[in-house]
Amino acid sequence: MGKGEDTKAAIVDQALNLVSTVGLEKLTIGALASATGMSKSGLFAHFDSKEQLQLQVLDEARKRFVDAVIAPALKKPRGEARIRALFENTMQKWETALPGGCVFSAVAAELDDQPGPARDYLVEVQKDYQDVVKRAAQVAIDVGEFRKNLDLGQFAFEFGSITAAYHHFGRLLHDSRAEQHAYSAFEALLSRSH
Amino acid sequence: MGKGEDTKAAIVDQALNLVSTVGLEKLTIGALASATGMSKSGLFAHFDSKEQLQLQVLDEARKRFVDAVIAPALKKPRGEARIRALFENTMQKWETALPGGCVFSAVAAELDDQPGPARDYLVEVQKDYQDVVKRAAQVAIDVGEFRKNLDLGQFAFEFGSITAAYHHFGRLLHDSRAEQHAYSAFEALLSRSH
Repeated sequence: MGKGEDTKAAIVDQALNLVSTVGLEKLTIGALASATGMSKSGLFAHFDSKEQLQLQVLDEARKRFVDAVIAPALKKPRGEARIRALFENTMQKWETALPGGCVFSAVAAELDDQPGPARDYLVEVQKDYQDVVKRAAQVAIDVGEFRKNLDLGQFAFEFGSITAAYHHFGRLLHDSRAEQHAYSAFEALLSRSH
Repeated sequence: MGKGEDTKAAIVDQALNLVSTVGLEKLTIGALASATGMSKSGLFAHFDSKEQLQLQVLDEARKRFVDAVIAPALKKPRGEARIRALFENTMQKWETALPGGCVFSAVAAELDDQPGPARDYLVEVQKDYQDVVKRAAQVAIDVGEFRKNLDLGQFAFEFGSITAAYHHFGRLLHDSRAEQHAYSAFEALLSRSH
């Protein structure tokens, strides 16, 4: 990367940290100037608009999610091992990667009633991930580890509900047993899928 | 109520509608002036600060949640019927009561990394609700409908994860099967609790 690209990447990195704790709405050029120590005009040179900055942040988050959660899981053996890797990577790598935990959880409720490019992008990322989970469950059926009549949509819904609840109970309520509850719920989901 | 109280209640009502879709951060006096058709100075006469307005909104949400979800469930027979009522009231009454669905889901991710009175209040409301769910599950154990070794914390975690996921999958992803998935997940949770 050239120097300009390096600087831009460093700004997006700071912006992503900020968004994970305060959300997209508070990702202002002013807040970012404080976080990076750059001038507002210096930041404006890299991003045409707040909307473009938001999309860059979500794009960076998607790349990191693929690197931390999806790609390592796809290197695991086909079947339940891959499902376990998706879950464990989310819990151990993704929820701890940023100061505010999962950035998609941080912005989902903010964007759900806000039409626009940021919402569209988030929905695309989430649907992609749903497809990955469903596909991994289908593979587990194909190799004979999950039962043939498993409802893939139901599985993906329950899978997603566990990590989302972990984020909620852990971060908001500081429930010390949230992690244990999430792992137990996941094991129960696997048992029901056999 | 006197006229002043009526006006204040009408403002809080509008503010709550607004927060359910856009979150607490965007609940500005300006946005509320647009929503209510009142002047900013007229609004300032009723609320000393944005923080005080946020707390009033959360307080109103808590009252409505008790009226819509908790109080009717407590009138049901002790046992599983009461748990079912808590779940069904949340799905059918609470998620449909405001334009943006459950207002607690709408603000949870926004507040989870934001220390302050609004966060403290939300945590209090959520912990109260966790206690209600755990207590209802304990009663279901006492009357012999749930198994004696049920982990109440685990039950409350999974119970909460289902309605939260319904909010997420339904509102953000517009998944047409979200409701069906939520009901199936709930029935599976009840089965595991017997």
